[in-house]
Amino acid sequence: MADTWLTSLITETPQQGFELAITLSRRGVKYTQPDAEVLHKLRPEYANSHEALTAASQVVAINFQTVAAANNYWRK
Amino acid sequence: MADTWLTSLITETPQQGFELAITLSRRGVKYTQPDAEVLHKLRPEYANSHEALTAASQVVAINFQTVAAANNYWRK
Amino acid sequence: MADTWLTSLITETPQQGFELAITLSRRGVKYTQPDAEVLHKLRPEYANSHEALTAASQVVAINFQTVAAANNYWRK
Amino acid sequence: MADTWLTSLITETPQQGFELAITLSRRGVKYTQPDAEVLHKLRPEYANSHEALTAASQVVAINFQTVAAANNYWRK
Amino acid sequence: MADTWLTSLITETPQQGFELAITLSRRGVKYTQPDAEVLHKLRPEYANSHEALTAASQVVAINFQTVAAANNYWRK
Amino acid sequence: MADTWLTSLITETPQQGFELAITLSRRGVKYTQPDAEVLHKLRPEYANSHEALTAASQVVAINFQTVAAANNYWRK
Repeated sequence: MADTWLTSLITETPQQGFELAITLSRRGVKYTQPDAEVLHKLRPEYANSHEALTAASQVVAINFQTVAAANNYWRK
Repeated sequence: MADTWLTSLITETPQQGFELAITLSRRGVKYTQPDAEVLHKLRPEYANSHEALTAASQVVAINFQTVAAANNYWRK
Repeated sequence: MADTWLTSLITETPQQGFELAITLSRRGVKYTQPDAEVLHKLRPEYANSHEALTAASQVVAINFQTVAAANNYWRK
Repeated sequence: MADTWLTSLITETPQQGFELAITLSRRGVKYTQPDAEVLHKLRPEYANSHEALTAASQVVAINFQTVAAANNYWRK
Repeated sequence: MADTWLTSLITETPQQGFELAITLSRRGVKYTQPDAEVLHKLRPEYANSHEALTAASQVVAINFQTVAAANNYWRK
Repeated sequence: MADTWLTSLITETPQQGFELAITLSRRGVKYTQPDAEVLHKLRPEYANSHEALTAASQVVAINFQTVAAANNYWRK
């Protein structure tokens, strides 16, 4: 992957941090399967399985730990 | 998701922090499957499977780690 | 859930902390499936499956990390 | 469980810490299924499944993180 | 494995850190299965399974926590 | 297990730390199933399953977090 997609873990708000965690989770998938068409074909099966949705939410939670720590939890 | 749903990780009590962890876990699902009707249809299967319930509890536990750290564990 | 069940993460001993971690793990389940009868029906299947028991122990381990950190690991 | 089994997370050596992590992992199972006979019956199936053994090792790894942090990683 | 493949966890950018996390995740596989041909044969099945891709992304997320902490989250 | 196999978490290089994480992961298995012959018999099935290899890599990643923290991430 030659493109630059991650230059900082710092975000303004926790919600933006959560959305960055989602990006990280998706990128983790893309590095293993870069073919967008394959990913597109897997989607319906994926998005209709509660196991898959919970597993996805778990990866987001792990990445959110990283982003939240990076931002000192957006404490004021 | 255009709405603002997460402006702070700080809560008054550990229980509110735990409930925020539940919100984070559900949002992690919603970002992957935003269609509320699909989520509603998955629910009976989901809520009657012990594997699913344990998996859900695990995601909550991971998010609670983040929220608890953000709040310095509500130490007095 | 209107009742107050979590007012502090601080416990006197590590064992009480471990037991709090178990409470947190069960509450993570209850927030998804609040119907005690359903949970009761799932129990026999659950408590006789080694996969389920290991998965439960994993959630407890994650919650125990949080409780132990909150208590500075009960260092004297 | 009325007995006292965990009075400290501090151990003299990392190996004792690892063994404490194993105890914590087993206790996490026992709190859900206290019947020793049931656990004994599950054992052969359990100890001959690579999925189960890896899952067990993962719970130990999570508990070892806690014990190692409690001991400041046994740094001299 | 006699070759030297990991001399530092420090990277210049978060993206390089994420890519190091991917390397760590792959090396974790290779230590268990060093035969490149076997890994190559497993790939098609692997890269077309959403469960496998999410599981891979989870391992990357865990390794990224380590790399990000090592780099103090690339805070300026 | 009477033998001494873990006297320190400190390693000279991150790669040695990663290899220690692999040792910890294997020991986590051995404490549950000490019979080397059984482990040997499980190996072919194990080393040819992508699910098993990813699961193994995940345990290594968790143990590597511990070892890396113990070594202050080998920062110079």
